[in-house]
This record gives sequence, C-alpha cells and structure tokens, in this order.
Amino acid sequence: MTTVAAYAAPAAKAPLERTTIERRAVGEFDVLIDVKFAGICHSDIHQVREGWGRANFPMVPGHEIAGVVSEVGPGVTRYAVGDRVGVGCMVDSCRVCDNCKAGLQQYCTNGATMTYNGIGKDGEPTYGGYSQKIVVDENYVVRVPDGLALDEAAPLLCAGITTYSPLNHWNAGPGKKVAVVGLGGLGHVGVKIAHALGAEVTVLSQSLRKKDDGLKLGADHYYATGDPQTFEDLKGTFDIILNTVSAPLDFTAYLSLLRTDGAMVNVGIPEEPVNILLSSVFGNRRTLSSSSIGGIPETQEMLDFCAEHGLGAEIELISADQINEAYERVLASDVRYRFVIDTATI
Amino acid sequence: MTTVAAYAAPAAKAPLERTTIERRAVGEFDVLIDVKFAGICHSDIHQVREGWGRANFPMVPGHEIAGVVSEVGPGVTRYAVGDRVGVGCMVDSCRVCDNCKAGLQQYCTNGATMTYNGIGKDGEPTYGGYSQKIVVDENYVVRVPDGLALDEAAPLLCAGITTYSPLNHWNAGPGKKVAVVGLGGLGHVGVKIAHALGAEVTVLSQSLRKKDDGLKLGADHYYATGDPQTFEDLKGTFDIILNTVSAPLDFTAYLSLLRTDGAMVNVGIPEEPVNILLSSVFGNRRTLSSSSIGGIPETQEMLDFCAEHGLGAEIELISADQINEAYERVLASDVRYRFVIDTATI
Repeated sequence: MTTVAAYAAPAAKAPLERTTIERRAVGEFDVLIDVKFAGICHSDIHQVREGWGRANFPMVPGHEIAGVVSEVGPGVTRYAVGDRVGVGCMVDSCRVCDNCKAGLQQYCTNGATMTYNGIGKDGEPTYGGYSQKIVVDENYVVRVPDGLALDEAAPLLCAGITTYSPLNHWNAGPGKKVAVVGLGGLGHVGVKIAHALGAEVTVLSQSLRKKDDGLKLGADHYYATGDPQTFEDLKGTFDIILNTVSAPLDFTAYLSLLRTDGAMVNVGIPEEPVNILLSSVFGNRRTLSSSSIGGIPETQEMLDFCAEHGLGAEIELISADQINEAYERVLASDVRYRFVIDTATI
Repeated sequence: MTTVAAYAAPAAKAPLERTTIERRAVGEFDVLIDVKFAGICHSDIHQVREGWGRANFPMVPGHEIAGVVSEVGPGVTRYAVGDRVGVGCMVDSCRVCDNCKAGLQQYCTNGATMTYNGIGKDGEPTYGGYSQKIVVDENYVVRVPDGLALDEAAPLLCAGITTYSPLNHWNAGPGKKVAVVGLGGLGHVGVKIAHALGAEVTVLSQSLRKKDDGLKLGADHYYATGDPQTFEDLKGTFDIILNTVSAPLDFTAYLSLLRTDGAMVNVGIPEEPVNILLSSVFGNRRTLSSSSIGGIPETQEMLDFCAEHGLGAEIELISADQINEAYERVLASDVRYRFVIDTATI
C-alpha cells in the first residue's frame, strides 16, 4: 500500500478538496503510474453531483490519465519503468465474456470496473486520476506514443476514444460527410479526428459563437442549430451524425439530416425518454445508435492515430486548487476545450 | 389504350367493386402483363381506408403482382411474350438520383412512382394488380423463376422483399440469431427467408396461438411477448430483430433483447411518435432502424433466392368477389398467411 495525495469530493455535491488515499501494492501484472496530467470530463461532474444516481464517496474523479510508469510487477511484459502511458475509463473487466474476448471491454457483459466510483475485483473502491499515482493492471494501460504531449494526450483517453470509436465503426473517411453536434470537450476532438480520417466535417452548434474555432479545428462547414433554416438546408446530407450533446434534442429533426443508410450516433445520452416519429425519419434505412468509449485495443489504435496526425486535445492547464472553479466553468460551457489538471500541484 | 376489368374502391372506405379501367398503350420499353395473381397486403387496406392520409379514387389496389407477358414494346430487351414476371410496389422512379443509380429505387430522392395510388410520369393515376392486365416499363418488372408457382410468388413482391432486404442488409445468416416480431403476412415470409439464409430464428408473437405454424415455417424458437418473462429470458440475445408489427411497441423492451452491435429493424412502422429511453437501451452499440421494400435488383435477387430454396408464401387463394370479406379477415388477423386473388375471377 502506498499513500498518495489526491483531490476528492468527500460527499455528494461537496467541493473537491486535497486529501490522501491508499493505492494497492503493485501486483504481479500491475503497473504503478506517476500521474502527470488528468483531464476534467463532464461526467466527473455528473458523478460528483450524483446526477447519474447514487455514487461512492469519498470520490476521486478522473478517467483521462496520462503519466509515466515508475514501477512494474514481476509478470508485466508490455511496459517498463519510464514508459509514457495512459489510462481511460476502465481499469478492469471480466476478460472472459464474448465482448471482452473481442476487445470490447467497454461492453463487458459482467460489467467493466470503472476507473473511479467503481469497485475493483479486490472489493475496494476505485479512485481516479486526480491523484499523484495510480496502480493499474497492464492490460488496461495504453501507451502514449512519443509524438503526443502528455497533457494534450490525457483528454484523448475519454474524449478521444469516445469520438474515434464510433467514427471508426461507422466508417468515417474520404467521401463521407460527418456532422458533429456540439463543440465542447468531446465535440472538438471529434472534429479533429473526423477531419484527420479524411471526412468532410460539419459542426452543428447552437450558435455561430465558436465558428472560427470550429473551422480552425478542421471543420469544413459550421451551422447554427438555433436557426430552423439549417434543418432545411441540410436535409438528407450526412452519412454520420455524431451527437456529443447530452441534452435532449429534437431527434426527428436531426435524423432528417441523414442520407440513405446514414447513422446518427449518440455519445452524449439524455436520461429522459426521447420521442421519435419512426415513420417520418426512418426512411432511407437511417439508423439511430449510440456508442460508449471504446475497447482497450481500439484505445491504443486511437492514440497511435492521433500521434500520427499530430492531434491532441485543445487544453487549458490548471492547478489542482482550480478544480472546483473549473467545474463551474465546464457547466457554463466556458472552456476551450478541456481542462487538464497538472497533478504536480496536488 | 386497352380497357381491362378491375376491382376498385370508388371512394375512401367504400367496399371494392368490379369496374373497368384504361391501361396505356404499350410504349417502346413497356411490357403488357396478363395479371394472374395479386396478393392482398395490409397496406392495401390502409390506403383504401385513407389510414395513411388522403388517397386517390377510384383506387385499384395491389402491388404483389404475378403474371405472364403478353406483349412487349419494340425497345424491350429483357422480356418476351410468355415470360413469367412480377411487379411489386413501384412501377417507375427518377432513374438519375444517387439512390436510383445505386439500385435503391425505393429510396428515389425524387419519389418513386407507386404501383397504385400514385401518379405516373404521364400525369395519369396508377392502378394496381387487382386487375386483368397491367402495363409496366421493363425496368420495373422482375422475372419469376421457373421453380416458383405464380400464386405463391405474388406475395413475395411486397412481403418477400420487405423482409429479405433488411435480413440481407443486416447480414442474417449462419451463426446469427434473428427474431421476427409478428407472424402475419410479412412475418411468416420473414421466418422462411431468415431460416433459408441459415440464421437461428425466433418468433416473438403476442401469444403462442400460432406456435406450431411458426416452427413448421422454419422457426427454431417461439415466445409469447404477452409474457413478461420472455423479456427476461431473451435479454441480449439477438443480432437482428425484424419488427413486422405496425402497432406501437415498447421499443425500450425490445431493444434490450439485442446483443452487442445488434439491430432492430422496423418494416411495420407506427404513425405515432415512439418513446425510447436512449440511456438504458442503446448500450452495446445497438441500432434502431427501418427498411422499406427493396430496390429492383434486390427484388430479383430475392425471387431467385426463394426459387433456389423452394420458398413461397403460404396463401389462401380467393376469388375477386371475396376481396371485401378478405379485408375484414386481414384486419382480424384471420389469415394464414396471405390472401391471393385469382384474377381470372375478376
């Protein structure tokens, strides 16, 4: 056991504060990681505030983790001390179900172990990346390629894979028209990745406020969804609509923007039931689906792809004592585009 | 122009009665078909009764047409007098849009010309298969292979292609588990086709009333959806759910029966908006979609497939004077499984 400094919410909705937590001893297949940077994901706030239901406290959030290996267990074969590595939303899964065997650990039939606000196989609560060190089984660790700065890589472990996986699965690429709904933490990475994949990219955002940014990030077009004309102009246009917005949308209207065989994929999912008029919007074999992060092999593939394309998140580096303020700014959509905590300041 | 006998509804909701209609002169690329058999599709009733909105009267329904070529225009290259042929839901389309060029005439961007209750390119109303003859451009005619009886082939022109196309598109085949929801006109053909494609087939029907039939048609399993236990037992089971029921279902419950990457495809589509809880049912990258008949090349492929597998519809042959009674029986689900009109009796 090692005592490490961390930032934790002591109770639901409470501000985060500096504390210490215990990390398990490095096991046979474990990697001890000196966390260097941890991204702040909107879902950290959801969980700290119990927006998604009852949670475990104290809670150390953080599932966008980049750092350096400082110790390895005797059975570890993939990593060595000094390696630059990342950890995302999962730190374990059953490894025996069909999904795990297929590398789709995020859909583990027996339930993957979440990086924080979860319970590990040892029965102990998991604590995330807002901390100085973390111990993770090497099978749930990925390598950060040399071409990627660790601070810009951190958000890729959630925002990157969450957008890369569906773009990849639904074949975004040359000749394909991709719309990204929402230009926030997820959306801005989605635009970069879709562009790097060779697709023609359109941002659909409530207003044109971030248009200049969107075009700089790689979008070819930018439309305001607050303008009803947008839905007239773009009818039947897109092969893929990647929806990064959690608020309930008018799905019927968005689905009408798909061309034949087009897919609307939700990575931000409203908790309320949505109303969809099947008869009017499901012509042309359109599909409505969703996608949740990505498996471990695909997460590595995503990092390699991003490194190859010199593609990291747009970040605002903060110190640990700014976390609570940063949460408020995330809720106010006042971040371009991802806060990353310099964990040396914890 | 040729005057031919037909059965028509003179006005919305009126009973069908014997009448005569004019068929256009056989044009350069036209085929004159002696209609032998015409299936009764539930959508005939919807349209005669204006259940789908305002319609054109008098209406001669019928888009499940099987017959024999009796005359061809000078430009016709594919068919000769005496050929056994079929006509489905479309008799024309724009031929220049991307969908038409891709053989997906059913999704013609400019609107395909429906076999009846439509307006042809000549500005004249179209009349369907409840008639002794029909004139159709050869590009919208398919060949009925020798192995298929014309009466059992007729329903394939709508019910067959409507179920074959999505099963084909979503890769039903060996190793795949397919559920067919509803064992009616569409469903019973869907079961036969899914079985012939090599899939493991389950029927999901309100009760077990037709279980023996279902198993005889090729289903491996049969469950009652009226029993809540069904939804517990089959959670996460299917690769494809083919929903042939038009009544609004509990989509959230049905989607939970899909395994990872499974697709629920609706070919019977409720007119009312449906409520779906995205968060609970769209895990595992499940998709919700729909499918509308099929293109002309795929319709031919379907007929060839059915002939190869000795697969026709289960029919109840009726004379034209039984049409109105048959409509009532369709509405009461009292048909096993498709009424087919012997057009010699018109």
